[in-house]
Amino acid sequence: MPELRQDPATREWVIIATERARRPHDFQKKAPPSPSAARDAGCPFCPDNEHMTPEQDFVIPDTGAGDGRWRVRVVPNKFAALLPQGGPERRQSGIFREMAGYGKHEVIIETPRHDQPIALMDRLQVEDIVRAYRARYRALREDTNLELILIFKNHGRAAGTSLAHPHSQLVATPVVPTTIRLRYDTATRYHDDTGQCIYCVIRDEELKRGERIVLESEEFVAVHPYASRVPFETWILPRRHDSCFGHIADESLSDFAAVLQTLLRKMYFGLGNPDFNYVVHTAPIEDEDKHYYIWHLQILPRLTVQAGFELGSGMHINVALPEETAAFMRELEA
Amino acid sequence: MPELRQDPATREWVIIATERARRPHDFQKKAPPSPSAARDAGCPFCPDNEHMTPEQDFVIPDTGAGDGRWRVRVVPNKFAALLPQGGPERRQSGIFREMAGYGKHEVIIETPRHDQPIALMDRLQVEDIVRAYRARYRALREDTNLELILIFKNHGRAAGTSLAHPHSQLVATPVVPTTIRLRYDTATRYHDDTGQCIYCVIRDEELKRGERIVLESEEFVAVHPYASRVPFETWILPRRHDSCFGHIADESLSDFAAVLQTLLRKMYFGLGNPDFNYVVHTAPIEDEDKHYYIWHLQILPRLTVQAGFELGSGMHINVALPEETAAFMRELEA
Repeated sequence: MPELRQDPATREWVIIATERARRPHDFQKKAPPSPSAARDAGCPFCPDNEHMTPEQDFVIPDTGAGDGRWRVRVVPNKFAALLPQGGPERRQSGIFREMAGYGKHEVIIETPRHDQPIALMDRLQVEDIVRAYRARYRALREDTNLELILIFKNHGRAAGTSLAHPHSQLVATPVVPTTIRLRYDTATRYHDDTGQCIYCVIRDEELKRGERIVLESEEFVAVHPYASRVPFETWILPRRHDSCFGHIADESLSDFAAVLQTLLRKMYFGLGNPDFNYVVHTAPIEDEDKHYYIWHLQILPRLTVQAGFELGSGMHINVALPEETAAFMRELEA
Repeated sequence: MPELRQDPATREWVIIATERARRPHDFQKKAPPSPSAARDAGCPFCPDNEHMTPEQDFVIPDTGAGDGRWRVRVVPNKFAALLPQGGPERRQSGIFREMAGYGKHEVIIETPRHDQPIALMDRLQVEDIVRAYRARYRALREDTNLELILIFKNHGRAAGTSLAHPHSQLVATPVVPTTIRLRYDTATRYHDDTGQCIYCVIRDEELKRGERIVLESEEFVAVHPYASRVPFETWILPRRHDSCFGHIADESLSDFAAVLQTLLRKMYFGLGNPDFNYVVHTAPIEDEDKHYYIWHLQILPRLTVQAGFELGSGMHINVALPEETAAFMRELEA
């Protein structure tokens, strides 16, 4: 029997489609990831091609490897969706409202190695990526024209990238998107009603039940949420309550990097390197210090395609049970 | 310079990414649509394979062609996302809320011809498809457990279908999805403030400006909306104010079918048969007779991929200017 589940954090209903349900192993790709080279002469993100990108905003140097060598580089996106020009003024023309596309769009080049996804990296490299995320968050939050900083990753063609070299992106917007506003409003109302943060309540309830937990560390919990929108949707929730990703402490970076990498390794080896997106959800800049929210990371594998129903209704049909996918992931080696 | 545009109907901001803008002809596929056969022996939607589907809910017979022949058939989806079992009661388990996946999921088989998309059909066939949509809307709205009836089409693999035989779908849900609720609330608030329907206001403003109009008929207007979320997004707006698709009059069916087909022909020949979804937006059943909304159809070509930014923020980055794509479509023969 199909069922509808409501995400307590967004109040969105998801259809869990048991009639078309697929078992976790149905999502495994048979083919192993295709091998590639450690360097690609034409890739703008590879070493010695630094001139192919705009001037860098941030770098973590590879001090042991010689002059100009780096571990992580952050550069403006050459085809930026938003640019730091213009201001926040709205212009009204009849019923239509527009504003300058003010903002920042950056690329975090995760490694000099063209062929090394996060799943296969040295742990310290993953830490450096998270450190770069935090550094860029902290730098950009100072710009008073910006409202939200969204850090995300597109892995694979179905996830919206054509560049193979491992990279993440950051887009900082001059408005709070409607969806984010709604998510935040729902959390605020929950806090008004109960005095609690809904994400903390979800985390603690999931820990109590256990069936959807994938892994736990000292500071983080990874779970396939109750109302998962897509198969293998995964959230990393901090145990420590904080609305703002930019506040992550030095001593938490390593733990977070380990949890993120372990999850991506499980996906890489257990599902055969599927395409995926991940997104760091963090409060709008003006709400960084409020208590209604905790920052968290959401991984959305692209194993199924959003079709007309999803696009038209905003409601998802999920063909996998999160209890089953979580059990499957829990048991995988990583 | 990139710009942000706000959809007056939803208040959602869209990034019009001029730095990565593509011209309308950049979206043309070079390869012509691959030919296929008029009948596929293994296809459950082809004539003589009627036993491969569940028993039909509705049929438009082909009276000239002999016993059992049909022009349009509607059958329950064999792998239904929702089923008419259970009731609307919510069950609460700790913080989690669920309910039975009550609902209907139907397939509208648009033609007996395996190889004939709407773009290439006889006009009367398209009318019959719309007539079938209306018949199923009118039948299902009588079910008091249902809240919303969503009719949509997935054309091509990137749009979420693997079945080549032309078909649409209908999903009737026991809840109003959050996104639809928000869309409807925004329209209601606009009506409260101005006494007008926001969709009618948009239609009239677009007609006055003309630059984003693709075509007009006696009863309908087709436009690439001001804050288009994806390249070649197209809305068909009725000139006559009515919240409910199910109210479409006999004398309007033919006009609507002609406009829909002309738009799909322009896409088929002008862009090389791209994958697309379309969705009939109509008010929740309980709001059928209210004046805050008009039903309309939205076509969303799948020429680009939603990546991490869109999934994380709900905000779209559009790499085409609707003024340019509308001009391109306006000039295409169909």
